[in-house]
Amino acid sequence: MTAAPGFDAIKAARARIAGSIRRTPVLSSDFIDEELGASVFFKCENLQVSGAFKARGAFSAVLKLPAAQAARGVVTHSSGNHGAALALAARSRGIACHVVAPRTTPESKQRNMRRYGAKLTLCEPNLAARQAAAERILAETGATLIHPFDDADVMAGQGTVALELIEQVPDLDLIVCPIGGGGLISGTAVAAHGLNPKIRILGAEPEGADDALRSHRAGVITPVAQPASLADGLLATIAPSTFEVIRTQVHAVGTASEAQLVAAMRRVWEELKIIIEASSAVPVAALLNGSLSVSGRRVGVVLTGGNVDLQQLPWS
Amino acid sequence: MTAAPGFDAIKAARARIAGSIRRTPVLSSDFIDEELGASVFFKCENLQVSGAFKARGAFSAVLKLPAAQAARGVVTHSSGNHGAALALAARSRGIACHVVAPRTTPESKQRNMRRYGAKLTLCEPNLAARQAAAERILAETGATLIHPFDDADVMAGQGTVALELIEQVPDLDLIVCPIGGGGLISGTAVAAHGLNPKIRILGAEPEGADDALRSHRAGVITPVAQPASLADGLLATIAPSTFEVIRTQVHAVGTASEAQLVAAMRRVWEELKIIIEASSAVPVAALLNGSLSVSGRRVGVVLTGGNVDLQQLPWS
Repeated sequence: MTAAPGFDAIKAARARIAGSIRRTPVLSSDFIDEELGASVFFKCENLQVSGAFKARGAFSAVLKLPAAQAARGVVTHSSGNHGAALALAARSRGIACHVVAPRTTPESKQRNMRRYGAKLTLCEPNLAARQAAAERILAETGATLIHPFDDADVMAGQGTVALELIEQVPDLDLIVCPIGGGGLISGTAVAAHGLNPKIRILGAEPEGADDALRSHRAGVITPVAQPASLADGLLATIAPSTFEVIRTQVHAVGTASEAQLVAAMRRVWEELKIIIEASSAVPVAALLNGSLSVSGRRVGVVLTGGNVDLQQLPWS
Repeated sequence: MTAAPGFDAIKAARARIAGSIRRTPVLSSDFIDEELGASVFFKCENLQVSGAFKARGAFSAVLKLPAAQAARGVVTHSSGNHGAALALAARSRGIACHVVAPRTTPESKQRNMRRYGAKLTLCEPNLAARQAAAERILAETGATLIHPFDDADVMAGQGTVALELIEQVPDLDLIVCPIGGGGLISGTAVAAHGLNPKIRILGAEPEGADDALRSHRAGVITPVAQPASLADGLLATIAPSTFEVIRTQVHAVGTASEAQLVAAMRRVWEELKIIIEASSAVPVAALLNGSLSVSGRRVGVVLTGGNVDLQQLPWS
């Protein structure tokens, strides 16, 4: 069974991926700070290579593979950003990357994966179809499965966001991440607490996919039967490996409605002049709607990705 | 008559504004590099405070005013970004900022100016109406006119973009700027050549407002009778002060059609995950359409602003 990485594994991942990823900038908005009565520092992983923080975990895992194993390629299933990131990481080693994605994946994300060289297999949008497609590819190719979040090397890569952010903005009181499968927040919690045990880690989810909140309250993994949200990167259910960190190291999980996350998405575009996707707006929405309380604090918010179909904006 | 600032004035401006403005990040795109066969470094002044590089010139001018003079406030006329920047700079000293703007100014830019505290006077969209309104305000208040570009302190502030960019990316062969009134490119040329006389400075204009190109070719200022473009920040005619620098220190001026600038704007949004306004897309369009040739070079491109009405995107 997968276990979350330790702090040393995250530092090792950082050294491994340093030449492959960007040190992303941190931005802020006086207007948002004023509204929240807090100092908010946005870590812009939407500006990361591949358009999302997922490049960190993908490079962390791909660069760790021994050459003989790597040569047989990698395979994953992904709503899009992990697939694109894995394709980019695979290309950097000259190896094949197979991605199984639901056929409902937005066209912009499919295009993004293809242009990084992913071999895309579209399947029905359910777990059984996805697993069947992935297993067939694994059997045919001998490729290595790189799970989007239930993988210690992937989680270690995602944790490097927090190492960088805390260097860029010392004395943070809190870090807020969205929760999909929980890879980002697990890596973030281990990394941040490795540097400073007093930092509080907060999660945020769409109301329609709030399995981490339910699980955090119940003390056991509590899936949502039919997760649904515009935040298509946050529909996955947390795994035992990520839940263990969420249960013990995440202090609270906030939520936002669909209207609130659309408004927050637009607000970030207008105030920060950057493009974030719906999934990235959820933590911002959970701050603006009061679901997470940060008054008087220094708050890091991870903006996770910017892969958006510009022809279909949710407010137009 | 106004003269362009010298290199020392730009260094002095940088020291003056250092605590008020952001050191903006530099981004790049492998896909754009591949298409152009060049290494392109985008200096993201759309992420500058007030949403545009104009904050540099505005703070440079406002922070230089003696206290007694500053107390009577400042006034300007502006298509939007200089007005917002001046309001922000004025607010930082607790003084009034009056802005005369054409009534055709996009709503998003009017709102941006107002929320920084500008006292807005809308006028007919012609030079006579604008001057009459500004003169009335000057007479009533005793405020100081801070011209959007024909002002040595403003130009000196704009030149600080190039000082930063060259620190961030040494060994640039070229820097490309859009040309409206010419304040940015004048400051850029003086600053860049002060650091490295071999850097080539290129300008870019919309085809419908190509007065700098015509003037550069003719050797005298050659206005366009009815400038028209979506790039509403680039409709002004260059001044004698800026033309003197353009004539002697700018190596070429490229142009782009309206369709090309819209495509370039969208391309930057998609590739870099940042929001740039139409005016900022013109240099990118002039690279992509081959009007400016940069093959094999290391190219800095100043992305000037990100104040866009998200409800009215030019491709939707």
